[in-house]
Amino acid sequence: MDATQLWQRYQEWLYYHPGLELYVDISRMRFDDELVESLKPKFEKAFKDMQALEGGAIANPDEERMVGHYWLRNSDKAPTPELKKLIDDSFDHIEEFARKVHSGEIHPPEADKFTDLLSVGIGGSALGPEFVAEALVPKDEKLKVHFIDNTDPAGIDRVMQELKERLNSTLVLVTTKSGGTPETRNGMLEVKHVYEQAGLDFASHAIAVTMQGSKMDQYAMQEHWLAEFSMFDWVGGRTSEMSAVGLLPAALQGIDIRAMLAGAAEMDEATRVANLKNNPAALLALAWYQSGNGKGEKDMVILPYKDSLLLFSRYLQQLIMESLGKERDLDGNVVHQGIAVYGNKGSTDQHAYVQQLRDGVANFFVTFLEVLEDRKGPSMEVEPGATAGDFLNGFLKGTREALFENGRDSVTITVPTVNPRVIGALIALYERTVGLYASLVNINAYHQPGVEAGKKAAASVLDLQRQVMQVVQATGQPLDLGAIAEKVGVPNRIEAIYHIVRHLEANNRGIVVEGDRAKPASLTVSSK
Amino acid sequence: MDATQLWQRYQEWLYYHPGLELYVDISRMRFDDELVESLKPKFEKAFKDMQALEGGAIANPDEERMVGHYWLRNSDKAPTPELKKLIDDSFDHIEEFARKVHSGEIHPPEADKFTDLLSVGIGGSALGPEFVAEALVPKDEKLKVHFIDNTDPAGIDRVMQELKERLNSTLVLVTTKSGGTPETRNGMLEVKHVYEQAGLDFASHAIAVTMQGSKMDQYAMQEHWLAEFSMFDWVGGRTSEMSAVGLLPAALQGIDIRAMLAGAAEMDEATRVANLKNNPAALLALAWYQSGNGKGEKDMVILPYKDSLLLFSRYLQQLIMESLGKERDLDGNVVHQGIAVYGNKGSTDQHAYVQQLRDGVANFFVTFLEVLEDRKGPSMEVEPGATAGDFLNGFLKGTREALFENGRDSVTITVPTVNPRVIGALIALYERTVGLYASLVNINAYHQPGVEAGKKAAASVLDLQRQVMQVVQATGQPLDLGAIAEKVGVPNRIEAIYHIVRHLEANNRGIVVEGDRAKPASLTVSSK
Repeated sequence: MDATQLWQRYQEWLYYHPGLELYVDISRMRFDDELVESLKPKFEKAFKDMQALEGGAIANPDEERMVGHYWLRNSDKAPTPELKKLIDDSFDHIEEFARKVHSGEIHPPEADKFTDLLSVGIGGSALGPEFVAEALVPKDEKLKVHFIDNTDPAGIDRVMQELKERLNSTLVLVTTKSGGTPETRNGMLEVKHVYEQAGLDFASHAIAVTMQGSKMDQYAMQEHWLAEFSMFDWVGGRTSEMSAVGLLPAALQGIDIRAMLAGAAEMDEATRVANLKNNPAALLALAWYQSGNGKGEKDMVILPYKDSLLLFSRYLQQLIMESLGKERDLDGNVVHQGIAVYGNKGSTDQHAYVQQLRDGVANFFVTFLEVLEDRKGPSMEVEPGATAGDFLNGFLKGTREALFENGRDSVTITVPTVNPRVIGALIALYERTVGLYASLVNINAYHQPGVEAGKKAAASVLDLQRQVMQVVQATGQPLDLGAIAEKVGVPNRIEAIYHIVRHLEANNRGIVVEGDRAKPASLTVSSK
Repeated sequence: MDATQLWQRYQEWLYYHPGLELYVDISRMRFDDELVESLKPKFEKAFKDMQALEGGAIANPDEERMVGHYWLRNSDKAPTPELKKLIDDSFDHIEEFARKVHSGEIHPPEADKFTDLLSVGIGGSALGPEFVAEALVPKDEKLKVHFIDNTDPAGIDRVMQELKERLNSTLVLVTTKSGGTPETRNGMLEVKHVYEQAGLDFASHAIAVTMQGSKMDQYAMQEHWLAEFSMFDWVGGRTSEMSAVGLLPAALQGIDIRAMLAGAAEMDEATRVANLKNNPAALLALAWYQSGNGKGEKDMVILPYKDSLLLFSRYLQQLIMESLGKERDLDGNVVHQGIAVYGNKGSTDQHAYVQQLRDGVANFFVTFLEVLEDRKGPSMEVEPGATAGDFLNGFLKGTREALFENGRDSVTITVPTVNPRVIGALIALYERTVGLYASLVNINAYHQPGVEAGKKAAASVLDLQRQVMQVVQATGQPLDLGAIAEKVGVPNRIEAIYHIVRHLEANNRGIVVEGDRAKPASLTVSSK
């Protein structure tokens, strides 16, 4: 295709949303009319599926749950008046609480105002809030936000070290939908311990987002925490950014959450249109389908040319990979679906791996995210007639062109600026794309059966660890790994025991290991 | 294979480095003896290639350059006494400068001491320093480090906003090997502008790392910058962490750079061993080769279970993808090589995409990075007999097991702790693995011809922009896009012109665009 034909194709497929001033360009994806034609029935089904979902159908059959994140942005869409009220009240509660924290009406015992927010959560309870906090940090940030999103002791120590001088004015937000995520529970207990060691009352610094009746809910009530905010069972973790999970920390930071909701609502409206060319999510789903042949054969490289959007790809990794990465389709066939997602930001990543993208293994397509506004206010010229932002724009366009010339496809999404409304719209755009694509490839986007296996395996490691400790402590003399396995009654788990004792030893947990490290079979273990 | 056989395989293939207390385990990669046997001649060649490279052979034939990053860690290996002296002097210079900055002997005109370091650089001049600054931040950090690693005006504004109160005590380090990278030049000019607007003398706050004779070198000399540090043409950007590029900011932050060098030197020694089983880099190269069939058919997912190692995967993206992502092999055949690299950290990523890794598209292998020491000092129990670190360890082992059971392979690298010596060793391990793997698949790991295409395309966009501006300003009346293209003399570049005016308009650059945004052909452009 020559430049004139490409320009025709560009115009033919360009999507523009006047309200959001948002463009989606899939002209550099090499799909043809035949594919579009052949996908028509699938798209019709996808649009119907989506309508049923929004109407309150049980869209997550494994877990017998409705999928209602779209109602959050337009509570009139909720299937019952009770649900509508729950949603409306929940946002009022968030705004009122944030207002009182900002004014100092709600304050810690030892200070006039809260200065910092420490968010403890993982996965769906962290990735959205982290993305939004970084993308939308307001100039007059009301609370400075920190995250503990793992069960890494050294990582927790580093965050707590940063907060050391301001513990007394730090509000701790614990987010766990189910209330049973071990990483979050551990983080909360570690943080609480630090407060106690500092002689501070943890409860008067602590708030929670969780489902009513969860372990965390019970715990927070017993301990008289400062406040609690509800999660709903019809909002999945990876689509919870527009619930209390995402909006509470955003409001506390000083971000306009009504604008986020409004942007998402506008995009939801636009992506309800049951017509491929007039629906930006459907266009993206088409691009995803074509690039990977409906089987995820190509990776999705996400390149926002804007520093503040660095975490968008991490957010999308969860939204897309956890939704689409499924063993079976809805009919029970083994399909091993999914799309791998990675990327950081442009033009920085051009210096990291565009070499491979252009010349190397052609196993990906790129999504460029272009922000038209370079900055607030005017720019100096770094060369006659050119600003730093012109360079950024030139690198994006140049890379798009150089890749296409070499047979590498790309999508370009263009937004006018980075603000709460745009971020709300982008999240809604991808949520809907995931739903439509899942329908195209006939999978359930709303469950995550594979996550359980790792959790169970981890729990079994911890059980084994307790048994190993008991055996070693009860035996007065050094035991080799095989002997420990025998005594625990799991003769085939020698390797697991080896890993456990290596870790216990490194952390001075009352265990001594002796022998040649290069020959694990030679090691003996005794208690200190 | 049952658990007993796996344990045998584990022991058979386990690599242990007693000095570094570092393990490499490739037992969960499904290679067989036949593959190992068939690769023997390739490995013999790879070991010889590496010897020649270390001896000063022209290993980068396109650019007629030696590849000398290994000499940095053991200057006795440098091919001439002059080079040895250059290396030794360079490190002495860094340490002396850092000492003087820390003591206040070198200080800014307006303050007793420098408090912050602002590093301006991109790609090889940013990813290593960012990784190390995050991984090794000392408890008593001497200077707090900030980065500008892009040409994004809003991103620059955000960093400068953070530094606003401490501009006068901020040391600005500009790193650009060639001296001609536009992003870095732009960042430097923007930062300089901020200093000037604040009435501060930029030159007395500025230092540079660049090659002698480069544009940046000339500029820094003319402007009388505080100091300059040399880059060498025989150190590539992506292997420059152990040169002034990485060691100067590390030393200024207060990191023990001699320990980094020592760790790297120990690993270099270990990876010179011309024997697969006794060479950890060769074992990794074997794993890479097997997983992707020597063609990069599988992505490399990097999962360090340690928050401080979050940026390791971004560092490795450059090192691996830019080195291996090549169109042609050394004989000129079109091969489209490479390995895609992504990942953040465990167990956090388990909540993002282990669902897909376990159940979904099987297009990857995982590298687990295990750190035995959980934290400095003892841990509380979060459950009877279990700490937060035990959970972290359990999640790693559980995920490794759950993935393997489902046919997904993994490598596990185990280190005792995260300190400068270990980080030096890890960098050296991967540098060598890249070199050996490149030799196995017969490509040049030390050039990046594809990077130029995007740069040229970007420069052409900027040229076109200048011409478009001239045409629009010279014409008194609105022009449509086609007319502008005609007047500029590039009738086939209408789309490029469209993108340019859209960006100029959004940034108030004296251009007015009117018409229906959804129909680009309807747009007219005039000057304001």
